[in-house]
Amino acid sequence: MFASLTVLAPGLLGGSVAKAARSRGVARHIRVWSRRAETRAEIQGLGWCDSVAATAAEAVRDSECVVICAPVDHIVPLVEQIRPALAPGAIVTDVGSVKSAICRRSHGLLAGHARFVGSHPMAGSDRTGHAHAEADLFRGRTCFVTPLHETDAGALETVVAFWRALDAVVVTETPERHDEIVAYNSHLPHVLASTLCSLLARRDPRWRDLAGSGLRDTTRIAASDSDLWRAIFEQNREEVLRSLSAYEDELAAFRAALANQDMFAVRAILERGREYRDGLRG
Amino acid sequence: MFASLTVLAPGLLGGSVAKAARSRGVARHIRVWSRRAETRAEIQGLGWCDSVAATAAEAVRDSECVVICAPVDHIVPLVEQIRPALAPGAIVTDVGSVKSAICRRSHGLLAGHARFVGSHPMAGSDRTGHAHAEADLFRGRTCFVTPLHETDAGALETVVAFWRALDAVVVTETPERHDEIVAYNSHLPHVLASTLCSLLARRDPRWRDLAGSGLRDTTRIAASDSDLWRAIFEQNREEVLRSLSAYEDELAAFRAALANQDMFAVRAILERGREYRDGLRG
Repeated sequence: MFASLTVLAPGLLGGSVAKAARSRGVARHIRVWSRRAETRAEIQGLGWCDSVAATAAEAVRDSECVVICAPVDHIVPLVEQIRPALAPGAIVTDVGSVKSAICRRSHGLLAGHARFVGSHPMAGSDRTGHAHAEADLFRGRTCFVTPLHETDAGALETVVAFWRALDAVVVTETPERHDEIVAYNSHLPHVLASTLCSLLARRDPRWRDLAGSGLRDTTRIAASDSDLWRAIFEQNREEVLRSLSAYEDELAAFRAALANQDMFAVRAILERGREYRDGLRG
Repeated sequence: MFASLTVLAPGLLGGSVAKAARSRGVARHIRVWSRRAETRAEIQGLGWCDSVAATAAEAVRDSECVVICAPVDHIVPLVEQIRPALAPGAIVTDVGSVKSAICRRSHGLLAGHARFVGSHPMAGSDRTGHAHAEADLFRGRTCFVTPLHETDAGALETVVAFWRALDAVVVTETPERHDEIVAYNSHLPHVLASTLCSLLARRDPRWRDLAGSGLRDTTRIAASDSDLWRAIFEQNREEVLRSLSAYEDELAAFRAALANQDMFAVRAILERGREYRDGLRG
């Protein structure tokens, strides 16, 4: 599919992109760059990495496709950094979990030279770092591909084919629509888990040992890296605020029903939630 | 420990109490009653059940210890129903997840005749019904035992020893304190999961297939039985309302920080939540 593929900032996702591409023969040569010298030394000679570059610019030179796997607030700066080194017509994509700002700014930066197409594979794990990368991380998982109106059709087609080759289920949406969906499906749940934990952190510390599996499940995602999520909330601020506002109304309706001892209304909310949850895959 | 033990309303918890008691030699004779004739027929002859009674009153006759495993709104009615049949001095406990009303009313009903001590083992599973019962369901799990000031000391000691024999980690609290703790640790997380699902249920139905594992973890408990939870919220209404109010303040603080682009404050909330979650067992 590609003579050469570049993965920038290989952590769990980037390492998995490279491993998945290697195992499926998607690229003959896989080049990698990491900001940390230590990581560059670690990945040298691993099966999914044919060469390690000392700079991002060097890593993308002559590459047909570049996948940027950095945190969302580092993606546009990296696009800026690699721009002079990109081959004409090269395809650049990313795995960031917010898309509007990244897609518009990256498209603008590369316009007339290289071609940007945003991606967001909904895959992950409790673990981080390339050491936990898996060739099958994307198998059966949703991967958003988020073209702008002005995105090059050939590049879009290639990026869609790339994720399909990695066995992801590709869903094409505008960046704006994507950001609205993930605000509800991913960022809002994260806010709830984090704020619940942040509230419980200020109660009697002995209560922590009296938690059941319900609390553990509900709050699992609150253990994620705070800086990664601060950046996600900052980039998807407006959509997250909109979803939060809708959620606050829902919560207030529950509270009012319980305060008024309207147990039919309480049950109706529980039941609507149960039906939704039963229909959720997995 | 007991010549005879009675389990009323054996579902997942009651069946596990009986299995655990049998496997640890805690009772010579285990008697069971279920409201449903079908369940009574099913459990007849199972290893953890020596006899099945047609009525709750018959099941408790001459029993030294009775464990009521019915939903929280059925416990006090069952105590009323079995009262005339209880042997003098018999110990009655339960597994309900709200304790104040149940303990005060049950103690009052039995006072001077039999001895009530409330319990709440924090154990469960996605599954329900005695067919999924496990002899080790309580192993290493917290079990609250919630005496009143006026609870008989000998009965309290016996109930604590009973749960310890089943390998639970017993925590003794007043019913009121218990209800405050579980409002925060269990009932509030349930409200968040259910209201999140109930909000998402009213968004585009296609979004449901675009959910990641974060949403699935966060909302797992929303799949629980709506009637069981309606009854729990009804019985622990005041404490749940108090915890909800504290939570709404926490959520509003997050929203204000994000709305004001105060990303230091956003990160501080995420970080306090992360630290709490990291310290949670399991």
